[in-house]
Order: sequence, then C-alpha cells, then structure tokens
Amino acid sequence: MIWHAAVKLAYDGRLFIGSQRQPGLRTVESETIDALVNIGAISSIAESRFRFSSRTDRGVSALGNVFSFVTSFDRKSLLRALNAASLDVMYYAVTEVPMSFSPRRARQRWYRYLFSSDNMDLEMVEQCATLFEGRHDFKGFCKPDGRSTVRTLNSFRISSRDEILVADIKGREFLRSQVRRMMAAVIEVGSGKISIDEVASVLDGKAKCFGVAPPEHLILMDVDHGLEFETIYSPTLNRKVTTYRMDVASRKEFIDSLCARLA
Amino acid sequence: MIWHAAVKLAYDGRLFIGSQRQPGLRTVESETIDALVNIGAISSIAESRFRFSSRTDRGVSALGNVFSFVTSFDRKSLLRALNAASLDVMYYAVTEVPMSFSPRRARQRWYRYLFSSDNMDLEMVEQCATLFEGRHDFKGFCKPDGRSTVRTLNSFRISSRDEILVADIKGREFLRSQVRRMMAAVIEVGSGKISIDEVASVLDGKAKCFGVAPPEHLILMDVDHGLEFETIYSPTLNRKVTTYRMDVASRKEFIDSLCARLA
Repeated sequence: MIWHAAVKLAYDGRLFIGSQRQPGLRTVESETIDALVNIGAISSIAESRFRFSSRTDRGVSALGNVFSFVTSFDRKSLLRALNAASLDVMYYAVTEVPMSFSPRRARQRWYRYLFSSDNMDLEMVEQCATLFEGRHDFKGFCKPDGRSTVRTLNSFRISSRDEILVADIKGREFLRSQVRRMMAAVIEVGSGKISIDEVASVLDGKAKCFGVAPPEHLILMDVDHGLEFETIYSPTLNRKVTTYRMDVASRKEFIDSLCARLA
Repeated sequence: MIWHAAVKLAYDGRLFIGSQRQPGLRTVESETIDALVNIGAISSIAESRFRFSSRTDRGVSALGNVFSFVTSFDRKSLLRALNAASLDVMYYAVTEVPMSFSPRRARQRWYRYLFSSDNMDLEMVEQCATLFEGRHDFKGFCKPDGRSTVRTLNSFRISSRDEILVADIKGREFLRSQVRRMMAAVIEVGSGKISIDEVASVLDGKAKCFGVAPPEHLILMDVDHGLEFETIYSPTLNRKVTTYRMDVASRKEFIDSLCARLA
C-alpha cells in the first residue's frame, strides 16, 4: 500500500554540513535520502516527493524537524530500519499524512538558543527579546533572498538556569539566519555593547548589522503541523541515545571537574 | 633566571591523536611543544628536558596530566601565554620543581571511567572492581612491552549518579591500556556476559582477553607528585572553559530534551 509518511527526526548539527543536500557533502538530507534508498523505502527523490520542513544551517541542531515522502514501506518497521541505516540521525516519530500535505507549511516553528549568562544584563536581554515580538519587517535581521521580509514572531522568551540563558523563539515562518541575527543583537544589548534603541531603529528600517550568533547553540525544537505523531523508541534508537548521553556525560564530567578544581 | 617548571594541563582527548608526539599528527605533546616554542619558553625539546608525566591513548582525556621543562620564561605570565598560544589545551596550574624532578615518577595516578548503568548489576560491578585491588600480575590486562607486568592497584571504587556509573582507579603506575582492559572486564561481568571467576583466573595467569573499553569515557583525573601547584585562572583560560561549558550545555540540552520527548 502506498502512503504519505511524515517522520520526526533529531540530529546534532555539529556532525553535518547543514541540512540541505549539496553534491559531495554530508548533510542531514543526503544522509536521510541515502538511508531511505538503502532500506528500499524510496527509489528517487522526485518520485517519492521527499521534502524537509525546515532547512537548518551548518552547525544548527534539530530536535523536531520533519520530512515527508511517499512510500510503500511497512509502517511498523520504518523507523527501526531508518535508525539502523543512518548513524548520526535519530528518527523517533512517524505518522501518515494526506497526499496533499506539504511539510514546509507549518502552524508554528520553535527555536531554542543557549547562551552564557556571564556579563549579561538579564533585564536588557529580556527587553530586547520582547522588542522582536509581533509583526515586523525583519530586513535587517536576515540574509535576504528576494522574498518579503515581513514576518510575525509569536513569542521571544528568556529563561535562566544555572549559568545558562535560554531563549525560546516561536513563529510560523522564519527568514534565513533570522534567529541567529536576532540573537546576536540580544547578546550585544545584554553585554552592554549596543543600546535597545539601536536595535529598535534597525527594526524600523535603518541599515545596520549586529552580526550572526554562532550556530552550535541553536536547536530547532519543533515544527508543529498539528499532526498526531506516534513515537517509536526502537532498540537501535535507544543505542544511539545512550551513546550520545554517555558522550555528553563524559564531557560534562571533564569540564565540571575542571571548574571545581579552578574554583 | 633559569628554572624547572611543572605545569598541570587538561585536555579533551577527542581532539587529539593521543598525547605522545608523532610526526605529522596533532597530539597533546606536539600542541604543547609548539606553544612553548612559539611563546619563546623553550628552543628545543632536548635542551629544555621537556617531559610528560603520563601518556594517554587516542581519545582519552586528562584533567591533571603534568609536564615539566627548563626555561627562563617569566613565571607570572607563563600560563597566560601558553593558553593564548594553544587552542584546545587548558594550562591551569604551575610550580617550580627541583632540577632533579622527573614527572614520570609519581606518588599516585588517578583515573576515572564513566559507563552507563543500563543493564548493569551494580553488585557484580563492585565485586569485580575489588578483585583488581592490591598487588597482581596484570599480564592479562595490558598491552605488554617487555617490562614486568606486576603492579599494585591502590583502589578501584565504583559510585553511581543518575544513570551513570563512575569508576575511580588509583595506583602509582599503570601498564599500557591497563585501565581500559580492566574496565572491559568489569563491564562484561556487570552485564552478566562473563563470571567473576573468569576474571579471577586471568588475574591468576590464564591467557584470555576481555577486550578494551572505549577511550572516550576515560579521564586521567590527576597525577600526584606531592607538589604544591599554584592555580592560575587567566582570562584566556576562562574563555576556553566557558566555550567548552556552553558546548556541553547545548549538547546536554539537545539530548535531555530528546529523552524527555521519548519518555
């Protein structure tokens, strides 16, 4: 039986040259397409209508990106086969979607950015984040590609845990490098290098660039299409998650012990 | 003034092809020697009597390795200059030692190994660890190099935190890959694949190999020479530590959020 599958996947962006396929480079798309072809779930990209929800830049991670494709592969064994066929991508949820489904059209996208609270004025950080909420022309906070740069930001909230600040940014659609450019401005304001007024004036149309925050601390947390996904925690996925968790644990042990020694 | 310097350094073993210098490869020693030459602290290895306390294998990290060398470089600015000259090594403590000091001779070395508690029988893990304590011929738990394989293990203790088990192993001197071979046996016993008796028989001279545990979860925590080091937390070191901490935080955020979603 032929069906239209939507799959949720997670990946650490440090391991790929971005998500979008590029000849000869290891990207999330090429890794996923290779896995789909190798397990026999698709024979070609065009024929299967393979499509990703969100492009992520080189270094950016995703927890809830989505891709869809047309296949006759058995639904029950799809994620297990995919997880076994692809080393550094974690495929964890699946659902059937109508043939008309387009993954690019989403209800909401949610990005999370982590930054150090060292020398940050939390109140200024929050003020600057709030400034971006609502409908604006984000011309000064994107890499323009000819399309309209007017977008609506649903929310831009800051929370604090230990010595880390966490920014949660939600909107239906984002422009290229928009999150990282807004974050660069927020961090400049928080560290007292520029004023809120300067950010406001760029949001009002003044041409100025505050830079692009590093990609490694950005995670695409979720793309919400209003779908009900079925989470499948297979043994192969479990192995990947355990390996990653142990890797993080040993890195954390290293730096926490060093900090304790330096304190 | 010429003096004999001992420096404590920390490094993530994932970033180097081991500690010992090898032509054309990026090792911790070569990185450190290049930095010392670049800042003008030494002119040659032989002349400066440059020497590391402990070799660490490819992938193994260190928190408290030590090297010593003869120099006329200003003691106050040595660590700051070293940290600025070398990207992935953290130099954090220094002391002056007698000209006769040999870093290879230590009072005690302390290794820490992290492993997942998944499917581990903690009691069996502890029993197996205890078996290694004391004076034994570790012939079956090393890569032999012609020297005597009799060593004394001061202690081999297991502790548990969250879903991670931590092994702390202390002794004056270790054989090549001894810690990782003992750990492989401990993990095999803990997961019920072999019995304690099999490990005991190899410790008694029977020829059998239980494998070598992966290097990424091993940290050389400290080499103790009975010296009083002065810890120096310079701005360059602070930047390296903060960068590493943010990197760990964003990896941890990624995997913790994924686990929360799968739970």
